[in-house]
Amino acid sequence: MIVLTDIEDVRAHLRAERLAAAREGKELQVGFVPTMGFLHDGHASLLRNARMDNDLVVLSIFVNPIQFGPNEDFERYPRDRDKDMSLAKREGVDIVFLPTVEEMYPEPTKTKVLVSELTDHLCGAARPGHFDGVTTVVNKLLNIVAPQRAYFGQKDAQQVAVVTQMVMDLNMDVEIIPCPIVREEDGLALSSRNVYLTPDERQAALVLSRSLRQAEQLARESEEATVEDLSQELVQMIESEPEAKIDYAEVRRFPSLASLPGSMRVKEVEGKILLAVAVKFGTTRLIDNVILTMEGDK
Amino acid sequence: MIVLTDIEDVRAHLRAERLAAAREGKELQVGFVPTMGFLHDGHASLLRNARMDNDLVVLSIFVNPIQFGPNEDFERYPRDRDKDMSLAKREGVDIVFLPTVEEMYPEPTKTKVLVSELTDHLCGAARPGHFDGVTTVVNKLLNIVAPQRAYFGQKDAQQVAVVTQMVMDLNMDVEIIPCPIVREEDGLALSSRNVYLTPDERQAALVLSRSLRQAEQLARESEEATVEDLSQELVQMIESEPEAKIDYAEVRRFPSLASLPGSMRVKEVEGKILLAVAVKFGTTRLIDNVILTMEGDK
Repeated sequence: MIVLTDIEDVRAHLRAERLAAAREGKELQVGFVPTMGFLHDGHASLLRNARMDNDLVVLSIFVNPIQFGPNEDFERYPRDRDKDMSLAKREGVDIVFLPTVEEMYPEPTKTKVLVSELTDHLCGAARPGHFDGVTTVVNKLLNIVAPQRAYFGQKDAQQVAVVTQMVMDLNMDVEIIPCPIVREEDGLALSSRNVYLTPDERQAALVLSRSLRQAEQLARESEEATVEDLSQELVQMIESEPEAKIDYAEVRRFPSLASLPGSMRVKEVEGKILLAVAVKFGTTRLIDNVILTMEGDK
Repeated sequence: MIVLTDIEDVRAHLRAERLAAAREGKELQVGFVPTMGFLHDGHASLLRNARMDNDLVVLSIFVNPIQFGPNEDFERYPRDRDKDMSLAKREGVDIVFLPTVEEMYPEPTKTKVLVSELTDHLCGAARPGHFDGVTTVVNKLLNIVAPQRAYFGQKDAQQVAVVTQMVMDLNMDVEIIPCPIVREEDGLALSSRNVYLTPDERQAALVLSRSLRQAEQLARESEEATVEDLSQELVQMIESEPEAKIDYAEVRRFPSLASLPGSMRVKEVEGKILLAVAVKFGTTRLIDNVILTMEGDK
């Protein structure tokens, strides 16, 4: 495993590897996992998928300042390079790309990649500018690594939808591969931000997965439950937890994130629906979701 | 020369060529000239440069709807495929990429690439949204062709500055190569839009290059002339032509397009300055410019 901090070194290394493979008549398959570090088993599952599908796996670790709002946790976002390196090595990463902020933004970027509509709702509404920062940095990273495949966790469902839209609209030559949410045994979705939680908040945060499981059950079992019933179920369940402060709890189509009529019976819906929640516990904002594939009953 | 209309065919063809070159230990050098067609000798000079520097030359012809304003000339923009093909063949183009609007925009794009600051002035101010359309389509085309080098005419000086900024900010792995303006013998800069001019307007339009030449002379020869004098020179000269309606006539730094203090002596300036004019003759809007390299006399 090699660790590179400079964009030009990443390019040069990949160019050499690609040329070496091509000399033998093969197209080097590169898998890419962009992260902000403080890696957990969710990231490990992305790396495992990348390892399986590709000849070479690139992991990037970069806490991207432009996707944080002014009052968000950029400065205190958790970092642990040693632990990250051990995990990367264990998962068979070939190249770790570890740029500084100056390497990625030698001067403030004048160029932004913006995805409209999909970013108006959910975390996009709660965190103005967040997704502009995400799409811009992901665009940059994809241009640097030029992988055939890039792996993203489905926990950030809206991010998956937005990045997939960007890749499609801009004809980027890469396949975006979403990977399932990895959870603790008690149901809490893995997140680098879980480290912020006090023991009490950690316990309270179980309401996220519990409310999603219950709403999923309602969606699967009830013939009559409407879209509105589903989101009410989420809201009521989360509000039953005194420590929880709801940011949103919504039911939308996926991956368009289009809204559904509240009065529509869930069983009538055809295609994928996203049940998504964002909740604050103390100062820590966590998100979780479930995606259901509905067959329509008309 | 092959003509391709489908994105996937362009990719497949280039992939095969790249692999074939790599088998022999070489990295295929691809030069790309993106155009809106109705090709003239200005385009031909771009193609000649591309031919000289690269193993394979790709020309795209695509009148990009999203860079035209609602009252602009998208519908009537001149088209002549046969002439374009002859010119392309004569200049040794390998691949002509000729997509339909549906191929480039199967649905309205939700993703836009925006460059700020550089697009606030000059044509950006006169044509709101124009450069957003340019950067978005150039980004798409560069992703499809993935050339080492892309060639742009310096007549669209602001476009060169904006595209270069995008490529730098987004870490796109391509070199943007600006090529000098090609002019008719009487000084008129070549433009596909010159075809719109009546004979009288064609004659009146000579005021563009004449005013730029005169301002250039002032910049080179006068020790005392200020930035304001230079732009006044441009304005007065253009206004002396009754058919001409000025859109802008400005002096700015290049490529930052930053303004210069009007009271600054031109000889004091260090670095490149852009003298840029946009003028309407009847319904036809033409642009022209000169870039001077100043050494500063302090």
